[in-house]
Amino acid sequence: MDLIIKNGTIVTAKDTYAADVGIKDGKVVLIGKVLRHSDAEIVDASGKLILPGAIDSNTHLGMPLNNIQAADDCASGTCAAACGGTTTIFDYVIQQPGESMMETIRKRNDLFEKGSYIDYSFNVSLTNVTPEILKEFKEAVDFGVNQFKIFMIYSKEHLMTDDGTFVKAMILAKELGARMAVHAENPYIINMHTEEFLAEGKGHPWYHYQSRQEYVETEAVKRAVYWATSFNTPLYIPHLACKEGLDEISRARNEGYDILAETCPHYLYFTNEVYKYEGAQNYVCSPPIKGPESQDALWDGIKRGDISIVATDHSPFQSHEKAAGLEDYTKIPNGVMGIENMYPYMLSEANKGRLSFNKVVEVCSSNPAHLFGCAPQKGTIAIGSDADLVVYDPEKTFVVKPEKMHSNVDHTIWDGVEFSGYPIKTFSRGKLIYDNEKFVGEKGWGQFLKRNPLY
Amino acid sequence: MDLIIKNGTIVTAKDTYAADVGIKDGKVVLIGKVLRHSDAEIVDASGKLILPGAIDSNTHLGMPLNNIQAADDCASGTCAAACGGTTTIFDYVIQQPGESMMETIRKRNDLFEKGSYIDYSFNVSLTNVTPEILKEFKEAVDFGVNQFKIFMIYSKEHLMTDDGTFVKAMILAKELGARMAVHAENPYIINMHTEEFLAEGKGHPWYHYQSRQEYVETEAVKRAVYWATSFNTPLYIPHLACKEGLDEISRARNEGYDILAETCPHYLYFTNEVYKYEGAQNYVCSPPIKGPESQDALWDGIKRGDISIVATDHSPFQSHEKAAGLEDYTKIPNGVMGIENMYPYMLSEANKGRLSFNKVVEVCSSNPAHLFGCAPQKGTIAIGSDADLVVYDPEKTFVVKPEKMHSNVDHTIWDGVEFSGYPIKTFSRGKLIYDNEKFVGEKGWGQFLKRNPLY
Amino acid sequence: MDLIIKNGTIVTAKDTYAADVGIKDGKVVLIGKVLRHSDAEIVDASGKLILPGAIDSNTHLGMPLNNIQAADDCASGTCAAACGGTTTIFDYVIQQPGESMMETIRKRNDLFEKGSYIDYSFNVSLTNVTPEILKEFKEAVDFGVNQFKIFMIYSKEHLMTDDGTFVKAMILAKELGARMAVHAENPYIINMHTEEFLAEGKGHPWYHYQSRQEYVETEAVKRAVYWATSFNTPLYIPHLACKEGLDEISRARNEGYDILAETCPHYLYFTNEVYKYEGAQNYVCSPPIKGPESQDALWDGIKRGDISIVATDHSPFQSHEKAAGLEDYTKIPNGVMGIENMYPYMLSEANKGRLSFNKVVEVCSSNPAHLFGCAPQKGTIAIGSDADLVVYDPEKTFVVKPEKMHSNVDHTIWDGVEFSGYPIKTFSRGKLIYDNEKFVGEKGWGQFLKRNPLY
Amino acid sequence: MDLIIKNGTIVTAKDTYAADVGIKDGKVVLIGKVLRHSDAEIVDASGKLILPGAIDSNTHLGMPLNNIQAADDCASGTCAAACGGTTTIFDYVIQQPGESMMETIRKRNDLFEKGSYIDYSFNVSLTNVTPEILKEFKEAVDFGVNQFKIFMIYSKEHLMTDDGTFVKAMILAKELGARMAVHAENPYIINMHTEEFLAEGKGHPWYHYQSRQEYVETEAVKRAVYWATSFNTPLYIPHLACKEGLDEISRARNEGYDILAETCPHYLYFTNEVYKYEGAQNYVCSPPIKGPESQDALWDGIKRGDISIVATDHSPFQSHEKAAGLEDYTKIPNGVMGIENMYPYMLSEANKGRLSFNKVVEVCSSNPAHLFGCAPQKGTIAIGSDADLVVYDPEKTFVVKPEKMHSNVDHTIWDGVEFSGYPIKTFSRGKLIYDNEKFVGEKGWGQFLKRNPLY
Repeated sequence: MDLIIKNGTIVTAKDTYAADVGIKDGKVVLIGKVLRHSDAEIVDASGKLILPGAIDSNTHLGMPLNNIQAADDCASGTCAAACGGTTTIFDYVIQQPGESMMETIRKRNDLFEKGSYIDYSFNVSLTNVTPEILKEFKEAVDFGVNQFKIFMIYSKEHLMTDDGTFVKAMILAKELGARMAVHAENPYIINMHTEEFLAEGKGHPWYHYQSRQEYVETEAVKRAVYWATSFNTPLYIPHLACKEGLDEISRARNEGYDILAETCPHYLYFTNEVYKYEGAQNYVCSPPIKGPESQDALWDGIKRGDISIVATDHSPFQSHEKAAGLEDYTKIPNGVMGIENMYPYMLSEANKGRLSFNKVVEVCSSNPAHLFGCAPQKGTIAIGSDADLVVYDPEKTFVVKPEKMHSNVDHTIWDGVEFSGYPIKTFSRGKLIYDNEKFVGEKGWGQFLKRNPLY
Repeated sequence: MDLIIKNGTIVTAKDTYAADVGIKDGKVVLIGKVLRHSDAEIVDASGKLILPGAIDSNTHLGMPLNNIQAADDCASGTCAAACGGTTTIFDYVIQQPGESMMETIRKRNDLFEKGSYIDYSFNVSLTNVTPEILKEFKEAVDFGVNQFKIFMIYSKEHLMTDDGTFVKAMILAKELGARMAVHAENPYIINMHTEEFLAEGKGHPWYHYQSRQEYVETEAVKRAVYWATSFNTPLYIPHLACKEGLDEISRARNEGYDILAETCPHYLYFTNEVYKYEGAQNYVCSPPIKGPESQDALWDGIKRGDISIVATDHSPFQSHEKAAGLEDYTKIPNGVMGIENMYPYMLSEANKGRLSFNKVVEVCSSNPAHLFGCAPQKGTIAIGSDADLVVYDPEKTFVVKPEKMHSNVDHTIWDGVEFSGYPIKTFSRGKLIYDNEKFVGEKGWGQFLKRNPLY
Repeated sequence: MDLIIKNGTIVTAKDTYAADVGIKDGKVVLIGKVLRHSDAEIVDASGKLILPGAIDSNTHLGMPLNNIQAADDCASGTCAAACGGTTTIFDYVIQQPGESMMETIRKRNDLFEKGSYIDYSFNVSLTNVTPEILKEFKEAVDFGVNQFKIFMIYSKEHLMTDDGTFVKAMILAKELGARMAVHAENPYIINMHTEEFLAEGKGHPWYHYQSRQEYVETEAVKRAVYWATSFNTPLYIPHLACKEGLDEISRARNEGYDILAETCPHYLYFTNEVYKYEGAQNYVCSPPIKGPESQDALWDGIKRGDISIVATDHSPFQSHEKAAGLEDYTKIPNGVMGIENMYPYMLSEANKGRLSFNKVVEVCSSNPAHLFGCAPQKGTIAIGSDADLVVYDPEKTFVVKPEKMHSNVDHTIWDGVEFSGYPIKTFSRGKLIYDNEKFVGEKGWGQFLKRNPLY
Repeated sequence: MDLIIKNGTIVTAKDTYAADVGIKDGKVVLIGKVLRHSDAEIVDASGKLILPGAIDSNTHLGMPLNNIQAADDCASGTCAAACGGTTTIFDYVIQQPGESMMETIRKRNDLFEKGSYIDYSFNVSLTNVTPEILKEFKEAVDFGVNQFKIFMIYSKEHLMTDDGTFVKAMILAKELGARMAVHAENPYIINMHTEEFLAEGKGHPWYHYQSRQEYVETEAVKRAVYWATSFNTPLYIPHLACKEGLDEISRARNEGYDILAETCPHYLYFTNEVYKYEGAQNYVCSPPIKGPESQDALWDGIKRGDISIVATDHSPFQSHEKAAGLEDYTKIPNGVMGIENMYPYMLSEANKGRLSFNKVVEVCSSNPAHLFGCAPQKGTIAIGSDADLVVYDPEKTFVVKPEKMHSNVDHTIWDGVEFSGYPIKTFSRGKLIYDNEKFVGEKGWGQFLKRNPLY
């Protein structure tokens, strides 16, 4: 045995019990009372929880946006992830004009192979769903990619996919064991409001929210869900931020349809109030953060199981880049940070009693693994699973400060937020990569995670 | 007094009672028992019903379509209307490129002034909602037009209005006392199916239906209703043909929203079966006729009041024009006839006991008048109202034959349908214009009906 | 002609138009412009509305309750009705122990024949639904009674009918052309609360409300509606006072079920706040008046047509009788007054623009007539209908004071309420019985109104 | 170590993985790859699944009914349970007249202490909810009982609890950490039908179903759920058998209410067709088995998580006892068997692919443990949990025959049903009690399981 984590309390999506965990060759090989082994390194976890590492199923590391780029590349991003207890990411590869999808995926894989500190996997953001792209779905699934996302917005930028093509893609994805995802907002209403606002000189970030109110997202979610139910195909709604959209998803799920929803920590912690105050531009993301009714509904959705996954949609930009749009919100690069905060925030809420630790493990680790084809390798603590483990100290208090974060970005929307409990060690396949606020990982350690077809 | 209709039973939207009706200068001036007047012409209506003439609130007389034109112009169309007990039409003026809306309306009015046998009024079909067009709304409302329709389909033909512009128009219309209407079908799903079908050689009219199934209409209705409720604006859904769309409308109405729906006789009598048999092309219209579940739902909607109006969407094309698309349904000019059949069909259903005569008067006459600003001039039998009256013989049986119809079109989808009861006389402002299967009207008799602003 | 009402504006459930009304032998015989007749008495109604008299479909004149009796008997009650523009009542006959139903009805009819100032008709309140009572339904329907009411409450008093017997009665009533009505509250929850409250010394009228909160009525309404839909029978819910119950009724109606609801003016004007202040006991009725959410919902229900009828449930008790229960709300005789206020209140709301005059005529007159088998004799202004007419002055302001009311009861919950517009003349079958705040009726003028079977 | 189960595949409610399980002193102490221990007995489970033993949370062992008694007492019942892979039961103690609740529970416990082969725990069926009984709730919860059931039926037998008392009990139970359960059927509708049927000579078991159709159960479920949501209390609906009731439960759960539902294998496998054929009496239970729509809905409810638990309601009677009511269904003792069939049936459905093995473990073992206060001692395979384990052979085929069953009852409704896969070993706290169709348990081995308060 290489390593024994002793005296902790194991928490999985369903069970909580005191036990030692024995690790060999990066795998969990033994769970039991009072494990002993002469060769093994010993980590004492008395009074601590032992959790499966989180899976962040929605990241955009090094994402290009017009002529700039998201602040975190695969190195800084996965370093930050590790320091927040996240041991696997599903990063969105963006389809590039003039390139085949597989070329783009492989290029991306090369980058991550060299740069990632933790295991990684890919989804694809489609920006132009041609018949050729559809033909590549099969190869992508064989390669280990089982989620493709289209945009219902960005009509002006010609990135939008129309409803007919979207349906065609959903039907095809289902056949191949993949699942379509959709960025659900209605572009025409956004445009209508934006034209009006800018004409009236209303460029403040508050109008970013005003132009994309609850109904902008809700309508698109309803429409996407309606197509999925009409054609009986699976569907994934990432970064869900609105109550009424969730209501529709719940209705469809109750009727037996295979609709999955994901929300993000920033929708669970903040409300649209943030767009009213100084620094509002830093919260600009799409969909924007909604009102308190939506926030409550999202928490309810997590509790009753209609939201299956919490992930970050991590795509931070530097302060000066965000500030460039202070007078004209359309010039603010959209996206916020969260990759280092998700697990600590959710676990802190569990520690305060809002939900169970098991539920946090379920939505942040177990569900992404099961629903996207990498369980039981990831997402649980069980014999044979990867030893992606987090030692969590429920007694530790942690206040977020930009300087304590490991991301490349120069600020954080989580600044000043106090967590009750915090990860103190992160192991990736048995290797310690984070130790008590210090990153100790190794570039290139992260491996490509081939996800299985879903059906 | 000019005319007394004696001994009949008056039927309005709410009341049924035996009385004589006295008419002077085109108006009803006296209702009572045993009216007498030395000068008056006497019409005996013993054993007959006296009904308000129908208002057909959805016609397309002389509508140009690509390089052809709907078979009925304003003369033949209003002649046919009169022979079916319809005494008023709301005709759709189609916005023309390179012309202001008011120019088009006035040209149209000139045509009708000369050619119409019955009173007429206009709605406008918008094909390109520019800022200039929106500016003309006010003048159009002042002129007496209080309904504007946009298309959610025809994306390829660039006639479609996007959701943002549609919302802008709804908000503006509400301010001006008008109501937006919407042709609700989703163009992208139609295109997806059509491309696939044509690629597979599936061009038969059955695939017209297959490419525009229930969900194609339902999604668009849901979306339109969602915008109307989100922005709290009135909305009109003409030619509603599907159950699920109606469900959504009912839900919104129950929550107090001002959403009105209209359906057509062909959706109430036929089902999608018609697209399977010889002559299928003659039934091609959009939205297409749906399955029996929808038909049942539409009847229920009429009974419980969630469908307010029955109208025809009359736009017939000649047999050879329809037949041109037998191998490729996209080449069939869309539209069917009904202007002479609506009232007889609906009244026949009442006569057979399916619904009350009062209900038929309500949806075919009283509601269009009340809801579109021309009551009590039209839509009822009351002192001071226009003497637009129909004498209806509940004992007469009538079998539809093309040669018995007064339209210019060479066939009818109602061919062979037997009606129980039939109109035997139609009066337009006190003037007899139809008498026992004979048209006796006078060209140019019809007057423009200025409809009042709605709020 | 006996009488001509000239120059007024006729308002029926659907139409509004200026016309004179000519009356002979108690019937409307002529409606027209500028009626003239040498013999006729002339009433000038310039600037006034001419309305059908109201039908109060829920009264309890002379109702015995334990050892006291409702303050108004058939004389004082119908006098008050007339002075408020009500020209017909449906009074509830209460089944008496040891008497056949028909005996009780006939005794009651004898009383009214001698004492009633306006036309009257009967419903029956059943207090012990034995097989013998069910056998009498047929005879009662033949006699002209087509509504029977059971109580879901009063379990302790053994007046309650159990669900099984209620269903049996609904099935039977449907076969005979009658409709079951139900007092919908759950007795066991009332009892539970009451035992607890009284044990804690909470006897103030506020606890009357607390013991019969929204859910007490809602559950019973839901259950009654569920049986009606499960066995596909018609149902009538009188004195509906709660939002959730209405929601259930709307749902059932939308699915096509024949469920009718009635609400009362006191539920539309007051809220449960009244139980907090001095004089609270005077508002004690069952179901009690609910919170503002319910009030809003009831108005919405009227507007969208899911509440068909407004009636009073008139059953007033004297101040000292009400005050006897100030310390123990169970000792307060339940019931409030309204027979003279209903039409003025509703018309005043129309006059202020909350709803149309037509709608008021519909729910207060036309609907009761149509739905309970006495149209077109009652409920409209049409040739051949009874000349039960109200001349209404929209300019007159009227402030309710006990001394201005014509009831026997010594106070009124409407005290101080100001109406915009007021009835100035009431005609019963052509006879003037109320003239500008003065009652001028004649005892025994009222006739029994035989209502027809309903299906 | 006492025992090692080697080479199997562990299945818990969430995870599936290959591992050996080490057991000491009745607890699982080690899970790992290739466990070795000199002293331990070895069980080879190659090709087999290792599952947590099932928990049957609804049994009636030795239940008295009028003058007879359910066929299985605690010995035969728990023997049968063990042979079907069930290692814990929650048995319903029935409140006895003239005894305190605790006396009855203790007497019952004495019986089980001597006679039970597996661990057991109690719920209480209340038959007369007096204030004294409510006072005993606290002591019962301290004793380890956290569920109390009332009957909404049996009005004639005076076992029914009225709605007010039921609500009082729910509020009290919530305070104490317990949960009320309810037998949900409407007694008055049953009585109405039964009186009519028996009067018409319709006594065949088919009329048992006819008298308790879907609506009989649905109404009661709706009512119980309505009270639980109105008073915001937890609720348990055992033996749910109808679609509409489930719909209501789902709606309430979606709104966040803590309503739990249980269904039974006989509702999942059979439909009401069974009441039409010979032997119909043997299927008589209450609620009766419903139509195929309900069966489908129940499966859907399990899949989407709105049904949390599958249990048996095991209460078999001998053939001659059932047959006594062939002419008069009211004379048939109600209840069917299932204690030995539940887990095999559910696992067989998993083995055929209808649902996952994890889901079966969840509803048959993990959920009862978590939801009723005995996890992680029961319901999972984890370090420190009781070694209540089942070795399951997915390759074994098993056809149910009465003579192969271990119950005292002389027939089985499962006769002839073929299972794909079957339990081959059952361990209770590490002790082998069932081995390949042979029972090898020891009387009195079973221990009382103290369940914790729930909140």
